[in-house]
Amino acid sequence: MPEVVYVNGEYTDFAHAKVSIDDRGFVFGDGVYEVIRVYPKTGPFEMKAHMERLVNSCAGIEIEMPWTPAEVEEVCYNVLKRSELRDGIIYIEITRGAAPRAHLYPTNARPTLVVYAKPIKGHGDLSEKGVPCITIPDDRWAHCNWKTVNLLPNIMGKQKAHNAGAWEGIFVRENGIVTEGTSSNLMIVTGGVVLTHPADNRILPGITRKVVLNLCQEKGIKYKEERFTEEVLLTADEVFLCGTTTEIMPVVKINDKVIGNGRPGPLTKQIQAAYAALIG
Amino acid sequence: MPEVVYVNGEYTDFAHAKVSIDDRGFVFGDGVYEVIRVYPKTGPFEMKAHMERLVNSCAGIEIEMPWTPAEVEEVCYNVLKRSELRDGIIYIEITRGAAPRAHLYPTNARPTLVVYAKPIKGHGDLSEKGVPCITIPDDRWAHCNWKTVNLLPNIMGKQKAHNAGAWEGIFVRENGIVTEGTSSNLMIVTGGVVLTHPADNRILPGITRKVVLNLCQEKGIKYKEERFTEEVLLTADEVFLCGTTTEIMPVVKINDKVIGNGRPGPLTKQIQAAYAALIG
Repeated sequence: MPEVVYVNGEYTDFAHAKVSIDDRGFVFGDGVYEVIRVYPKTGPFEMKAHMERLVNSCAGIEIEMPWTPAEVEEVCYNVLKRSELRDGIIYIEITRGAAPRAHLYPTNARPTLVVYAKPIKGHGDLSEKGVPCITIPDDRWAHCNWKTVNLLPNIMGKQKAHNAGAWEGIFVRENGIVTEGTSSNLMIVTGGVVLTHPADNRILPGITRKVVLNLCQEKGIKYKEERFTEEVLLTADEVFLCGTTTEIMPVVKINDKVIGNGRPGPLTKQIQAAYAALIG
Repeated sequence: MPEVVYVNGEYTDFAHAKVSIDDRGFVFGDGVYEVIRVYPKTGPFEMKAHMERLVNSCAGIEIEMPWTPAEVEEVCYNVLKRSELRDGIIYIEITRGAAPRAHLYPTNARPTLVVYAKPIKGHGDLSEKGVPCITIPDDRWAHCNWKTVNLLPNIMGKQKAHNAGAWEGIFVRENGIVTEGTSSNLMIVTGGVVLTHPADNRILPGITRKVVLNLCQEKGIKYKEERFTEEVLLTADEVFLCGTTTEIMPVVKINDKVIGNGRPGPLTKQIQAAYAALIG
């Protein structure tokens, strides 16, 4: 499969794909991104929703996009075609561009656009067996709804989970409210109802999250977008993570607490099956 | 003056100074930095203190530095010499390095080191006249003591201040406690005592802040590292900002409130004079 990376108008390979050390993505984390799953059956899955969120993230951090969503989409399709990729992901990053380092937004820099596609490793049998997680303090900033590259708490949380033998870290705020995973949204099932944190400034408005809630609606599964505490999480009947690359991942243990009977629960499996039908 | 940028072992100019689009600084803001002021009289001012903080920031975000502080210092002095710079700043950035994008820390990436020197614009007569500021919500993450490149709240706060005709934004937490500026520490004078937020996880442990507190000690000026509210800030006798490039900057107005008599206060001027004597 050819390596193709689009950087500011040029198509190149990873070895040659570079940005200025003055790029504000590099010096300030001043950028936003999207990861889009590509399946053989669907092509780029939920492309429009990803473009919409990309536009919202740019608006959130006040980057004026010099491209229409259709133009960014076109770059994505060009990269896909040149990469000959049918199963994997598209990564898109937009930064405020390169300019001599200064906190104030540059007045004459053009935003940077990077797009590439690549295959990803599957989850093996984890989607059937489920994964262990740990809870970690949610000490992030107050704008987690923008998908920015200020991701230190996320990568450090993921690493902490990994070091503890867990697959994902689940953020819990100082007030005890559970928000989401470091790179996934979180849902629990309690009393037959799916619960997930409202899509406010404390979580990423996940596209898979939205797809899952739509599937619940379709299948007549009750759900509520409602805050819940760590105590409720740990005593939930079922827990699962969702996300673009995470898909639907059952959680069978959190810290030292086994969830349900330690195997993926019935509603989780029903939602997995419905999701699998969508993506083929 | 020759443009000199050190990037991972090579000396080049800004046009050629590039990093991989897979550099974790670019995709996660996974890096730390320092800005060191260079004066004709002193050379790099407080170099040891900056190196110490750089090491602490790396430790904070768990980057294993493959260089000793002395080796980083040597690169700084090489860049200075090649740049022929006598008055300006040295910028240092260390990231976790380039690796195929994944949240987990890469196991075989070498950290990226970028160092350059450049002149800076002076403050004109602002240091004598003082500047207006605004207060802004401190919605940052909980580890502001590490000098990382996750700087979105800082640049957005600075821009917000600028848009309001102010020189700096002063962060105020949800609980009303004043922390610091977007790129400076903050001190107030009330009842003849200098007050500044304790150097905990909510502020950057400023090197100029430390120098100022040492000067207070030397000159017999009373000071306390103590939390104070926005109300106390707005009714302070004197307010000033301090930082590596900010130096000692009097604040004469915050939001619509004139501070003192609208001119730099006596203790601020005494501290400015003592600082000026240090830097020549």
